[in-house]
Amino acid sequence: MSEVGIVMGSDSDLPVMAKAAEMLEKFGISYEVTVISAHRMPDVFFDYAKTAKEKGFKVIIAGAGGAAHLPGMCAAIFPLPVIGVPIHTKTLSGVDSLYSIVQMPSGIPVATVAIDGGANAGILAAKILAVSDPELLKKVEDYKESLKEGVMKKKTRIEEIGYKEYMATMNQK
Amino acid sequence: MSEVGIVMGSDSDLPVMAKAAEMLEKFGISYEVTVISAHRMPDVFFDYAKTAKEKGFKVIIAGAGGAAHLPGMCAAIFPLPVIGVPIHTKTLSGVDSLYSIVQMPSGIPVATVAIDGGANAGILAAKILAVSDPELLKKVEDYKESLKEGVMKKKTRIEEIGYKEYMATMNQK
Amino acid sequence: MSEVGIVMGSDSDLPVMAKAAEMLEKFGISYEVTVISAHRMPDVFFDYAKTAKEKGFKVIIAGAGGAAHLPGMCAAIFPLPVIGVPIHTKTLSGVDSLYSIVQMPSGIPVATVAIDGGANAGILAAKILAVSDPELLKKVEDYKESLKEGVMKKKTRIEEIGYKEYMATMNQK
Amino acid sequence: MSEVGIVMGSDSDLPVMAKAAEMLEKFGISYEVTVISAHRMPDVFFDYAKTAKEKGFKVIIAGAGGAAHLPGMCAAIFPLPVIGVPIHTKTLSGVDSLYSIVQMPSGIPVATVAIDGGANAGILAAKILAVSDPELLKKVEDYKESLKEGVMKKKTRIEEIGYKEYMATMNQK
Amino acid sequence: MSEVGIVMGSDSDLPVMAKAAEMLEKFGISYEVTVISAHRMPDVFFDYAKTAKEKGFKVIIAGAGGAAHLPGMCAAIFPLPVIGVPIHTKTLSGVDSLYSIVQMPSGIPVATVAIDGGANAGILAAKILAVSDPELLKKVEDYKESLKEGVMKKKTRIEEIGYKEYMATMNQK
Amino acid sequence: MSEVGIVMGSDSDLPVMAKAAEMLEKFGISYEVTVISAHRMPDVFFDYAKTAKEKGFKVIIAGAGGAAHLPGMCAAIFPLPVIGVPIHTKTLSGVDSLYSIVQMPSGIPVATVAIDGGANAGILAAKILAVSDPELLKKVEDYKESLKEGVMKKKTRIEEIGYKEYMATMNQK
Amino acid sequence: MSEVGIVMGSDSDLPVMAKAAEMLEKFGISYEVTVISAHRMPDVFFDYAKTAKEKGFKVIIAGAGGAAHLPGMCAAIFPLPVIGVPIHTKTLSGVDSLYSIVQMPSGIPVATVAIDGGANAGILAAKILAVSDPELLKKVEDYKESLKEGVMKKKTRIEEIGYKEYMATMNQK
Amino acid sequence: MSEVGIVMGSDSDLPVMAKAAEMLEKFGISYEVTVISAHRMPDVFFDYAKTAKEKGFKVIIAGAGGAAHLPGMCAAIFPLPVIGVPIHTKTLSGVDSLYSIVQMPSGIPVATVAIDGGANAGILAAKILAVSDPELLKKVEDYKESLKEGVMKKKTRIEEIGYKEYMATMNQK
Repeated sequence: MSEVGIVMGSDSDLPVMAKAAEMLEKFGISYEVTVISAHRMPDVFFDYAKTAKEKGFKVIIAGAGGAAHLPGMCAAIFPLPVIGVPIHTKTLSGVDSLYSIVQMPSGIPVATVAIDGGANAGILAAKILAVSDPELLKKVEDYKESLKEGVMKKKTRIEEIGYKEYMATMNQK
Repeated sequence: MSEVGIVMGSDSDLPVMAKAAEMLEKFGISYEVTVISAHRMPDVFFDYAKTAKEKGFKVIIAGAGGAAHLPGMCAAIFPLPVIGVPIHTKTLSGVDSLYSIVQMPSGIPVATVAIDGGANAGILAAKILAVSDPELLKKVEDYKESLKEGVMKKKTRIEEIGYKEYMATMNQK
Repeated sequence: MSEVGIVMGSDSDLPVMAKAAEMLEKFGISYEVTVISAHRMPDVFFDYAKTAKEKGFKVIIAGAGGAAHLPGMCAAIFPLPVIGVPIHTKTLSGVDSLYSIVQMPSGIPVATVAIDGGANAGILAAKILAVSDPELLKKVEDYKESLKEGVMKKKTRIEEIGYKEYMATMNQK
Repeated sequence: MSEVGIVMGSDSDLPVMAKAAEMLEKFGISYEVTVISAHRMPDVFFDYAKTAKEKGFKVIIAGAGGAAHLPGMCAAIFPLPVIGVPIHTKTLSGVDSLYSIVQMPSGIPVATVAIDGGANAGILAAKILAVSDPELLKKVEDYKESLKEGVMKKKTRIEEIGYKEYMATMNQK
Repeated sequence: MSEVGIVMGSDSDLPVMAKAAEMLEKFGISYEVTVISAHRMPDVFFDYAKTAKEKGFKVIIAGAGGAAHLPGMCAAIFPLPVIGVPIHTKTLSGVDSLYSIVQMPSGIPVATVAIDGGANAGILAAKILAVSDPELLKKVEDYKESLKEGVMKKKTRIEEIGYKEYMATMNQK
Repeated sequence: MSEVGIVMGSDSDLPVMAKAAEMLEKFGISYEVTVISAHRMPDVFFDYAKTAKEKGFKVIIAGAGGAAHLPGMCAAIFPLPVIGVPIHTKTLSGVDSLYSIVQMPSGIPVATVAIDGGANAGILAAKILAVSDPELLKKVEDYKESLKEGVMKKKTRIEEIGYKEYMATMNQK
Repeated sequence: MSEVGIVMGSDSDLPVMAKAAEMLEKFGISYEVTVISAHRMPDVFFDYAKTAKEKGFKVIIAGAGGAAHLPGMCAAIFPLPVIGVPIHTKTLSGVDSLYSIVQMPSGIPVATVAIDGGANAGILAAKILAVSDPELLKKVEDYKESLKEGVMKKKTRIEEIGYKEYMATMNQK
Repeated sequence: MSEVGIVMGSDSDLPVMAKAAEMLEKFGISYEVTVISAHRMPDVFFDYAKTAKEKGFKVIIAGAGGAAHLPGMCAAIFPLPVIGVPIHTKTLSGVDSLYSIVQMPSGIPVATVAIDGGANAGILAAKILAVSDPELLKKVEDYKESLKEGVMKKKTRIEEIGYKEYMATMNQK
């Protein structure tokens, strides 16, 4: 029984969606990753969405590109939060995905993150679960602190060595 | 048993979708109009799409606005042609509807018409049915002829009376 | 002590944001509504975001238009979920608000809903709280059921009386 | 005598339009592929569109990029369904092609598919012909089943071996 | 025998296109205004474009909205300059018209003016004819001078009475 | 001798540009308002821009809509800061004005504010002058404080009387 | 004394603008190519535009990218036709250039061609000069004929050898 | 004590922002470069913005991409001019950054430059400081002169050797 279901319309979305999984793993949240196309296998999709609550999912993270219906259709069936990840597309840069996911009608929200925002989808799921889990909240806060420390180091370094040397070092990498 | 199913996500789409029905009526094509929200009643929607073929539908015309999933989800289930009508939206002018309907993934086409193109959806359905129905094709060709005549009259009139008087007459209406 | 903080950058956002409050009320969720401009009173804003957790907020719903920084800045400080509502703008229709809210960098997600999606923000907050509150989940599911019934009635009616009479009745209203 | 005419404005559109031909071939539908520029050889184009019905075409698939007039001009002359394929453009990503094809005036619909949606154009043509051809319909349904099986295998595999190993395998390819 | 042909796809474009005629009239250039839909009467259109040169047209001004093919199709047939006027559209504000007109392929230029730029189309036609007509060039230069004088008066007035009184006077009108 | 020149391409821009003047007046900064079209009176414009420094202008605020060249051409000639105000346009909502003003090539910056951001242009000019004028800086800070107080009052009021009564009061106005 | 002036804002525009020169050369039209930045050398620009008529220019072709003011400023000064070429930009794909060039105010038209449409600018200049030059018109018509023949060969070839072999040959190149 | 603070949300913005620093260096203006994420370290950011005036900053140049809040939040706190640099983004080309920076509400202007316009931000800062520093103004004017000379050389060269040889030389580089 996993807490979060990660589902994507195509395995080509995996590089983006894997970042959601990695985040959940970092926070010790159980999850299941699968590939289901709402368009190519609507009955399998329906079954997935209908049984998601029974399976113990508390949040679904759904990623899709183009006419991205997977997140919205999940939200139409699954009663708990659905997070939508608009996948970047070659032709319209993901604006199509973004509009297809975020512009949901009244009654059926999808919690939309940035185009290709897989990592943020994982963090948002953690924040949602942290609402009733103080230990997890502590982890989320610690993670935030680590983000800050990461930038702090860069801040300190660029102030110490100056932007020119800093840039030279970046280019070497 | 009707040949065409006309379905829309909300009754606010009716003024646009009614034009599809009027066209079908003009061509003597049987149709059924209904309102089904794929988001608010996914099981009713699923049942509609799954039984559509048995009910005798040969074409489905689906209209929706915003994150417009209805046409694409119809196309995921109904094996015959689905025509999508992107409805104009207050916030994004229907660009959201258009992208959500036209940018379908490979394997699941939706025959998309213009934003608010209800009439064209009806005509397209007629053209599709006319492929195997010479009598209907004749009607479609006659309709086209009548369109031409309509503009011909305007052409003749503006050339006769000149654009100034023509415009004056328009403004009186 | 309220569970949800509703905050907006300007009181002109109130007609949209009030719908979030109405939803929360419908679900029996306690909330507080206030107006804080991150730009015009950054220290008041900072204090609001910093003390939000202590005050007992579990979710913040933040609405803003144009260069809409309020939701993202809330998410930068408040460790629990922040829901962003992009407000429609006269000049850019809310695309500016949407991009300013949804395109957050990795690490700081904002759960973005549709442009002017106040009601959906309220429902999303309820879904988030329902993760650990079976009673609330029941209410959310009941609400969804009521949405379905609402459309069902329209479906039944349009199928019974036909779209022409249905439309005629609409126009009378 | 072929059932479907595939026409494109430039041979640079061929990689996209070939996918339409491949689909028709898969379904055993006869077709003819040609290159006709409505702008550079308007009389040849006119002749093509005018004689298309006599030649036995039941559907025309027309692809074009930029100020993409070919599909719409086909639809202005050919009385049966015209499917339009907006070709991706270097400067405007195919938004110009999409708007030029989909925004047809009332009376003259073009069944528009996604930008670079050659394969979907072929499938849509098959669906249109399947309206009066049960055997073809069977093939269309079988094709859909094969699409489903393709994703099913991916679904099973990612659930079995986990997303990490799945991704590792993807990268090897 | 007129020097300029003004043609539009629909008589609803007349308020914009009439401004082109007014400009030509101001410059003493002969013109003919007509309404021809390339989509609804392609053969009439073809005849118009093919005989335009013989009729003595030196420039064609073509206006159209949405999937605006009229200017480009004129340019495909008529060997002399074609000026395209993108008409504002309710759904896409004329961006569809603009892209359909300006993004012509190499070999077939359309001299595109601003959305709803009827007056500028007339002036551009005059400038084109003025290339070989010094008297007309003088008129074009005089017109420009009059434009300048018009703004000069406003400049002088606002500098004299101040912007506040100037604005008050504007509001009275 | 005024410190700030306010110039606009057309007197129809005055309602927006007047707000810049009002702001300057509030801060006690001298200014001159005029109407000069870079397109209709290029020599007058050139003279204006060339003599602006001698006249004592320290900042120019230039507003224009559509193909908005006035701010950029000012910046090409006047060596001190030029603030550009993109004016909202009927056809493209001011996106055309914004891109024409902000996307200046390297070497010639225009300090661009929001579409229709007349007031902000005035405030930005004040901030620029305040760099070397502590008294003016004090006024700018006081103005900011007053903005804060304005929202503070709304904040207090909505928290006291609740959003429902607050909204009811708004609607009465 | 040349008939056409070709001017661009930066030598990085040369690959696009060279195509205009090549076209003029093909038609035997004399031209002069230069680089003048309206922003970096406004007085040189002014002088260029002011003396252009005396120098014998009948048409100016101006190319620019981003906040592309060069074509519009030419049109503000030079009384004969100005053709604008929007140059593709890295950040906004040339939409910024297009809007800055095409959206000219009433009174000052720029004959705008497609983004990166250098060749079409040359052809349009030829068409403009052909209005009063039957020999040149003949050349323009011959060029058009050659375009047609070019596509005709492709048409014949693809119909003869089929699209598969045709594509295989393309890939070899 | 430096006159200009250069701050960016991420060290990946450095290649663009370094150009601002280079410009300031060219003009002999003291500056400090640092990396501060308003989202990942809001308190560090707050402290930076609050102490900026005391530290002697007269102008802040802030660069950020995506939901770019850094410039606007600086402007909310720092009373002197803030220059915003929208950074190009992979998904939305920097349109998201541009809208997030330029569309500030009334009262809190950000002087926005072009997408990736680091150099222009530096020049604008110099122009702002030059308002009260005649020597610096001289340097700004000299720099402008050098820009002109740079293009003048290209102009002279292309006119001398012709565009073909000029282009050939460009390609060799």
